[in-house]
Amino acid sequence: MSISFAQTRETMLDELVAANHILAHQGVIDAYGHISARDPEHADRYWITRAMPAREVSRETLVEVTLDGAPVRDAQAKLFFERAIHGEIYRARADVNALIHAHSPSLIPFCNSMTLLRPMTGPAAFIGAGAPAFDSRDVDDEGDLNVVTPAQGRALAQALGDHALVLLRRHGVVVAGANLREMTRRAVVAETNARQQLQASVLGPVQFLTQSEIDHRRKGSRDPDRAWTAWLQEARAARG
Amino acid sequence: MSISFAQTRETMLDELVAANHILAHQGVIDAYGHISARDPEHADRYWITRAMPAREVSRETLVEVTLDGAPVRDAQAKLFFERAIHGEIYRARADVNALIHAHSPSLIPFCNSMTLLRPMTGPAAFIGAGAPAFDSRDVDDEGDLNVVTPAQGRALAQALGDHALVLLRRHGVVVAGANLREMTRRAVVAETNARQQLQASVLGPVQFLTQSEIDHRRKGSRDPDRAWTAWLQEARAARG
Amino acid sequence: MSISFAQTRETMLDELVAANHILAHQGVIDAYGHISARDPEHADRYWITRAMPAREVSRETLVEVTLDGAPVRDAQAKLFFERAIHGEIYRARADVNALIHAHSPSLIPFCNSMTLLRPMTGPAAFIGAGAPAFDSRDVDDEGDLNVVTPAQGRALAQALGDHALVLLRRHGVVVAGANLREMTRRAVVAETNARQQLQASVLGPVQFLTQSEIDHRRKGSRDPDRAWTAWLQEARAARG
Amino acid sequence: MSISFAQTRETMLDELVAANHILAHQGVIDAYGHISARDPEHADRYWITRAMPAREVSRETLVEVTLDGAPVRDAQAKLFFERAIHGEIYRARADVNALIHAHSPSLIPFCNSMTLLRPMTGPAAFIGAGAPAFDSRDVDDEGDLNVVTPAQGRALAQALGDHALVLLRRHGVVVAGANLREMTRRAVVAETNARQQLQASVLGPVQFLTQSEIDHRRKGSRDPDRAWTAWLQEARAARG
Repeated sequence: MSISFAQTRETMLDELVAANHILAHQGVIDAYGHISARDPEHADRYWITRAMPAREVSRETLVEVTLDGAPVRDAQAKLFFERAIHGEIYRARADVNALIHAHSPSLIPFCNSMTLLRPMTGPAAFIGAGAPAFDSRDVDDEGDLNVVTPAQGRALAQALGDHALVLLRRHGVVVAGANLREMTRRAVVAETNARQQLQASVLGPVQFLTQSEIDHRRKGSRDPDRAWTAWLQEARAARG
Repeated sequence: MSISFAQTRETMLDELVAANHILAHQGVIDAYGHISARDPEHADRYWITRAMPAREVSRETLVEVTLDGAPVRDAQAKLFFERAIHGEIYRARADVNALIHAHSPSLIPFCNSMTLLRPMTGPAAFIGAGAPAFDSRDVDDEGDLNVVTPAQGRALAQALGDHALVLLRRHGVVVAGANLREMTRRAVVAETNARQQLQASVLGPVQFLTQSEIDHRRKGSRDPDRAWTAWLQEARAARG
Repeated sequence: MSISFAQTRETMLDELVAANHILAHQGVIDAYGHISARDPEHADRYWITRAMPAREVSRETLVEVTLDGAPVRDAQAKLFFERAIHGEIYRARADVNALIHAHSPSLIPFCNSMTLLRPMTGPAAFIGAGAPAFDSRDVDDEGDLNVVTPAQGRALAQALGDHALVLLRRHGVVVAGANLREMTRRAVVAETNARQQLQASVLGPVQFLTQSEIDHRRKGSRDPDRAWTAWLQEARAARG
Repeated sequence: MSISFAQTRETMLDELVAANHILAHQGVIDAYGHISARDPEHADRYWITRAMPAREVSRETLVEVTLDGAPVRDAQAKLFFERAIHGEIYRARADVNALIHAHSPSLIPFCNSMTLLRPMTGPAAFIGAGAPAFDSRDVDDEGDLNVVTPAQGRALAQALGDHALVLLRRHGVVVAGANLREMTRRAVVAETNARQQLQASVLGPVQFLTQSEIDHRRKGSRDPDRAWTAWLQEARAARG
């Protein structure tokens, strides 16, 4: 089942549909979150669904857009307003080929707290020593929490820096990956890690990965595809 | 799938059935909660199901009643005792066309606490700077927690004021909307927000929306129908 | 759907099967809990399933036993060891016709805490001003936590007193009712109430029902059957 | 349904498949955990699945390996990297015939806390007066949290000692049993106990089993098979 990360567009598009279904089934993404993947042949374009719930996404609902968020073909497609998240991060991070913006339920408490989200176990090492946070108040304070303008998208990309996850205060999260499978695994692990860190904090002081443990694990997971396959089967079984 | 809010009665009645199924599936409403919608042609009448669990509601179980809670046609229908909730709020609030009274599980802890329920994210802005609370002890103290008499209904409507949600101490919640879809979204978001605020409070001081963020978001959601459609599909899939 | 509480044996036995399925589906009872109902014609006998998981109970697995726990007919039936719970409470409480002994997950934290389980809302009024607790250490201290001997059963019945629920320290709970539907509703509400009281305690001081509210609600629920019907449909739908 | 613990290999292999399905369905094991059972005829060999998610395991995916982790037949099989966990514990503990290594979600908070995991109820007596913990930092500090080398496996076996459960700091848990059914029951109870201990700690000081209660319960459960049968039916029903 292992698939090369230098994907064809066809494989990538199938995985983009799968990632939507997996992350909806795992409870990470609701009807207002969105997932994208960079086009394998045009580094300055990415694919994303038309504005719709993740669980309903199919090959037919996917649209190719430029980094400025303009549809390459279907100019009438109704798209997500927050495309600047995807375009500006793809622009800033050549190593990122897949992104999710979600309102991941267990991460919201960390979005609205000064307590750092930190890695409890090896698979969460991608969180780093403490997750960075983006605050829309630092960009403008008209009160809109969404990331809509290029300036807002750039500020978010800057807050992300070279991390793989950034919390959006009073809003949600953005998780990045080298490909859809890595991004998907990270998005699920982040939600789990948040729940476990929160529970551990009830017990008293919490032990986290050390910097050397984080560095060691970041060198790569041994089998990134195994959870993907199981999650996809579960998501499809649930759809009947 | 978008449907005008100036609805025909037929559309409204279909949505009233759907709202019952969605909110039962989402775990917001139990066998003792109730949902109503104002009649589009008679502002002094509303529709509600006969007394029965929300998941079993159908077009056939719906009854039209006056703001005094009297059935327009079927005088023998067994109705919910707490109709005064609906009648008195529709009387007091011309802008409200849909209501739910539920014992939403994650809101009960806030009903029985002096800690204010406050909005964690944009979609919860309708909660305002802090949810108001109604206490049956302020109306009478015979010990019945239900809102049954017109006087109790009026006191509840007064506690709601111009808010969209009011907590009922030691009892449950009432959520109002301009239409069934808005009310449904708010009822689900309120439950989610409560859970997240509770979790965040374990981590330390919690950051909430500012007044300007609340004001900005209250101007309107960009796509109120998207969650509705997804939730309805999920509820129907679960029913088989 | 309303059924008189002066039941025929046939109706009672059907409800005993249904109560097992409902409470397994609701997550109240695991493979080691048990439910009984007094025989409508012989006050000194009750019905209980052979030792087996609640979700698998059928009319064929039910056995009639005396208050001493001896099977009336099938002397070879493999029965639960803790039958003294049922026999001794039926002996002590003429008003009790249905019982459950369960390891209800959210009640265990209260079993092992000095914090009193108290009613958050009207339906939980049956808990009273604070749930009593039985400690096996008060009867013998050989270390067996089970309630097996008549003496242990009597001590448990004494701890229950005239309450409807008693916590068993480091073990579980017993819930009593005038009939299977009342007991079932109480067992579900107790689990929900425990979860909500625990959550509320995170927010700060918790407000509970006053004694007059408890007294008022104990006079009787207005529609005890509604939740039963909905829960039974859900349990059966889940079984396919 | 009771099956002798002196099993034939055929029965054991069927149960190894069943244990994988049960523990995946119960949420104890994810796509990266693994379960093994000692061969009934060769005490120096055990069976484990090829590296794959537990829910997909079948008789065909099982492989026999030596205590050094070498496959007896299929030298090309892709195996779990952490086989030293199984081999070294089977070497050290003649009484252990079944093992799981899992990232059991509610145990992780205890892995990363100095608060001891302790038994709340009788079925959790196997945890003992307080669960031991293994810290990979005590073996090497290159930062890899996995238990891969024989030396790491031996250190883990030493940390386990004569206990039935050992927490792995910042990683997961290992649970041992005399057979697959006992190990399965323990793995589920450990997860439940962790959740309940965590909840109880919110309420205030927590009461645990005394040493005499622990000793008494360790003499044996009265019906180890009942939960197994129910869980297996549930897991299979969920698979459709």
